Amino acid sequence: MRASFDINLIVAALKKVIPGDRIPVALHEPCFGGNEWRYLKDCLGSTYVSYVGAYVTRFEQMLADFTSVKKAVAVVNGTAALHIALKLCGVEPGDEVLVPALTFVATANAVTYCGAVPHFVDSEERTLGLDPEKMKDYLRDIAVINAFGSINRLTGRRIKAVIPMHAFGHPVDIDPLLDICREYNIEMIEDAAESLGSYYKGRHTGNWGKLSILSFNGNKTITTGGGGAILTNDERLGGLAKHLTSTAKIPHAWEYRHDQIGYNYRLPNVNAALGCAQMEQLPKFIARKRRLASLYQLAFQGMEGVTVFAEQPFAKSNYWLNALLIAESISDMRDDILAITNKNGIMTRPAWTLMNELAIFKDCPAMDLGVAKSISRRLVNIPSSAVLGEEEGEDDAA
Amino acid sequence: MRASFDINLIVAALKKVIPGDRIPVALHEPCFGGNEWRYLKDCLGSTYVSYVGAYVTRFEQMLADFTSVKKAVAVVNGTAALHIALKLCGVEPGDEVLVPALTFVATANAVTYCGAVPHFVDSEERTLGLDPEKMKDYLRDIAVINAFGSINRLTGRRIKAVIPMHAFGHPVDIDPLLDICREYNIEMIEDAAESLGSYYKGRHTGNWGKLSILSFNGNKTITTGGGGAILTNDERLGGLAKHLTSTAKIPHAWEYRHDQIGYNYRLPNVNAALGCAQMEQLPKFIARKRRLASLYQLAFQGMEGVTVFAEQPFAKSNYWLNALLIAESISDMRDDILAITNKNGIMTRPAWTLMNELAIFKDCPAMDLGVAKSISRRLVNIPSSAVLGEEEGEDDAA
Repeated sequence: MRASFDINLIVAALKKVIPGDRIPVALHEPCFGGNEWRYLKDCLGSTYVSYVGAYVTRFEQMLADFTSVKKAVAVVNGTAALHIALKLCGVEPGDEVLVPALTFVATANAVTYCGAVPHFVDSEERTLGLDPEKMKDYLRDIAVINAFGSINRLTGRRIKAVIPMHAFGHPVDIDPLLDICREYNIEMIEDAAESLGSYYKGRHTGNWGKLSILSFNGNKTITTGGGGAILTNDERLGGLAKHLTSTAKIPHAWEYRHDQIGYNYRLPNVNAALGCAQMEQLPKFIARKRRLASLYQLAFQGMEGVTVFAEQPFAKSNYWLNALLIAESISDMRDDILAITNKNGIMTRPAWTLMNELAIFKDCPAMDLGVAKSISRRLVNIPSSAVLGEEEGEDDAA
Repeated sequence: MRASFDINLIVAALKKVIPGDRIPVALHEPCFGGNEWRYLKDCLGSTYVSYVGAYVTRFEQMLADFTSVKKAVAVVNGTAALHIALKLCGVEPGDEVLVPALTFVATANAVTYCGAVPHFVDSEERTLGLDPEKMKDYLRDIAVINAFGSINRLTGRRIKAVIPMHAFGHPVDIDPLLDICREYNIEMIEDAAESLGSYYKGRHTGNWGKLSILSFNGNKTITTGGGGAILTNDERLGGLAKHLTSTAKIPHAWEYRHDQIGYNYRLPNVNAALGCAQMEQLPKFIARKRRLASLYQLAFQGMEGVTVFAEQPFAKSNYWLNALLIAESISDMRDDILAITNKNGIMTRPAWTLMNELAIFKDCPAMDLGVAKSISRRLVNIPSSAVLGEEEGEDDAA
């Protein structure tokens, strides 16, 4: 099969979408075309650049409004948000947490920060995220429900939580997953680090988890330099999230009292200022990114052996990172595709190494990961910056 | 005694130093009079606001140059820096770490993040920091040296490390402490969060610890919004600190491989840009802060029952936060002093609640803490922003 596929077809299709003056192109670049400078200057002028300041409050409100959750707590990054979300779900040392094998390392790392063990589950090709049906069959085999929750009878450990991760912005099929969580008494945390602006059945991702998280790293749909947020519809948990991420200090004019082991995970006001300006442009970014996705669909239409990943009917995706899925028959050409596209000035990247394949997690429990392995062999992320989806003559004030 | 002290004397002395147009005054305000705006603008223009970018490298080099350490690693805050420093010193779950009871909660929290137990030690009044002589006598009583290091024979746990914290910028007496560390095979980490610009016997604080840490919170001598750094003279450990704080990712053009449980503790480039501009002004800030300290000395000269804390002959302090020490005989007036000064628009604050007095740490081992308790009853921090030490007609470009 190898000889039968011409990688230059992929390069040509990408160049059809990417304007010639835009090569070299990164996978995802931020865009600072709004009030970023104005807010930064205002923040600096106020001298409130640190942990007290109006931009943090405003940014949190903008996030809550946009995602329709009751409470958003801005933190230093998505990893910190996951750590606190797991703590607030009651994950304790020795527990297991179900995590897709196909994810960024932060999802699994955060579990270990709680002294818990990641337990890897498979993905499905139609969402690139956790496969609820397969997980249900697996739990039927290995889980025993008792008064404490679900116990993994192979390890004797409690399975306390599951973290569906909306990979590359595409929503996991949440409803069947929720049914399983109810049946097995497992808490759900949505890792929505990549899915700000993505909807499941008309509602923004992050609304189903007991807590959920966002990320605003430099490569995300909006950025605060580094940053993240904890989302929740439980106001009590939201208050606790704020408290725990602010060194668990009890408010007082001068006294320093802390009632829990807390964390210094607050987002500085200067980063939140950037975030406010970015949030104002989010609808525009999403529109451009969705347009870019449709341009890619068009450009690759009819190319045998290569499909551009597309959202499910129940999903409206932000298309954070567009992805090519190449046929199994040409999967041994993936590294050549990466090398040749990058050589042509077009940044591409494979999916993350599967978590169970990292030495640090190789002894963690895992179900059959056939689909995740196949996706991981066949997926290539392609340039997805919002600016690439800008329409000529588009009203920039839109 | 109570009736014999007039709190208005303190208010009057403070007002003698603080310009009338400066009331209300905060305890420590940042000053953005340099290249802050220029560098922020440049950073935004480059679009490199996140974890890749020239300002991080430049900021790290400026820190290393200023403190004369071999390697500085910029991180998200001082707490994160302490966590990684402890890990790299080999602190393991179940170990004990000697920590002054008189410190900010982050010092003790970071120990718990490693699964270790803070073990509280006393301070001495001449430095406000850890008392090496008293700690030596204590270790003679409780520590047994064996092949694994020093074992606390009361708890059976290994005493792996000690964290001298240079309180309010004043250097701990390091040399005798180093002797003890050698004798008992205990690693030293300097918590220099408050002592950027402070020297011990002519050398910058942070040079003696196996690793040391700095903080750049909004209330510190320089600020990056939120930020911190790990310092070390061991280049191998410096490299490991960078690796561990950057998700332990192995460098590769597109592959995602992580060889350890890592952390997302990197300082964003946008915060580092702020840091570079602040570092350029650090010598000026220190000069102003030291001038302010001498103005306070003058204003309180001869006031019975109140002394302004002054550096030891072996120390050159940044006087991060100036401190009044009131006589034991009037210590029951401390809260009145706090209330009346704050009511007069002059922010003052007591020392932190002693760590062993927080419910979260009350079961941790502790030596006799008589001096820390006395300092904690008698100390009042007074406004210490660099701008308050500005000399009329001072060359602003200095």
